[in-house]
Amino acid sequence: MKPPGRRTDSGDRLAKRRMAPDDRRLALLEIGLKLFGAKAYEAVSIDEICRAAGVSRPLLQHYFRGKQTFFIAVVDHAIATLEKTARRQAEDRSFNALEDNMRVFFTFMREHPAGATLIKGSGGVPEVAAQIEAFRLRTVDLVLEVLADDDPAPETVAAVHCWNGVNETLAARLLAEPHLTIDWAARFSRDALLALLAAAEGVSS
Amino acid sequence: MKPPGRRTDSGDRLAKRRMAPDDRRLALLEIGLKLFGAKAYEAVSIDEICRAAGVSRPLLQHYFRGKQTFFIAVVDHAIATLEKTARRQAEDRSFNALEDNMRVFFTFMREHPAGATLIKGSGGVPEVAAQIEAFRLRTVDLVLEVLADDDPAPETVAAVHCWNGVNETLAARLLAEPHLTIDWAARFSRDALLALLAAAEGVSS
Repeated sequence: MKPPGRRTDSGDRLAKRRMAPDDRRLALLEIGLKLFGAKAYEAVSIDEICRAAGVSRPLLQHYFRGKQTFFIAVVDHAIATLEKTARRQAEDRSFNALEDNMRVFFTFMREHPAGATLIKGSGGVPEVAAQIEAFRLRTVDLVLEVLADDDPAPETVAAVHCWNGVNETLAARLLAEPHLTIDWAARFSRDALLALLAAAEGVSS
Repeated sequence: MKPPGRRTDSGDRLAKRRMAPDDRRLALLEIGLKLFGAKAYEAVSIDEICRAAGVSRPLLQHYFRGKQTFFIAVVDHAIATLEKTARRQAEDRSFNALEDNMRVFFTFMREHPAGATLIKGSGGVPEVAAQIEAFRLRTVDLVLEVLADDDPAPETVAAVHCWNGVNETLAARLLAEPHLTIDWAARFSRDALLALLAAAEGVSS
């Protein structure tokens, strides 16, 4: 059983008890993830954030200077959460682990439908564009690690970048097309990676 | 030989003679394509546009109300130019025509290096985001036409969308990685489409 003081799932409860600063910070980030995961950056107001979290505006500003700083921290938190799982699953360096990994990613993206648009436009915030681009590059590195190729050809690297493009597109398609399942997407994603790598080699040789 | 009055390649010359409104409009769009193709929307000023075109601010405003309207018209012009070639090549409904098509696209994207960023963030202009999304959908339709599948499975449609993602990523990689050639990218793109379609079928059956 969890101690009740550690429950962070509700803003109402959150407001009514004293929390350690790190716990409250995390609870605010989780609430931010829900709000910014549901609709676009511009559509979320500071008042809405405070109301959902059951905190005052000065308290929110004490933790995160303003809406944009909060948004950047939320994106950081979302990426870190995804990467923790990915890193763990990639440790066995297999393509099956990558498939599990993609299942986690697509589930997350379906639960946070604003994410697909965010990946494209970064909510117009340059810091977020940089965070997402860095995430892409780390994903490419992770796949190259799984490939265990110390000196990959630029064509191979390009194919892995393209796989990122495939996954971002798939996340958007899963929202647009209810007939598609996350299981299909995860398996397709794995097969697509293998196919793109084979195509890159076939073409470069 | 071209009649000299129809030359539209230089802003200087453009300013010094009377042009038919349609010709001048087209000449302004071509200059806009050069400017917005070279750097980001925010980085181009109205003064710079007028200087490059050798026209006064009121004349530019006569044709295009302001910078944003001009930008939207330039993106429209760019997409229309690309699609005219694509449509012509797709008429023979073959994957080799698609490869030629992609060569044209990647050449255009390399000549307009700001395009890859524009595709991602739409310069923050919602109308441009909608134009690019409509372009993506028409590209998907064009490929489905080439496939001649009247009732494609949602997995097949998703695979074609993913191919768009591959091409957009490739355009960015061609800028980042000088070792990659446009010929490689065009052939890889064609092979990637076939591979993605095969993967979609393999997974869905």
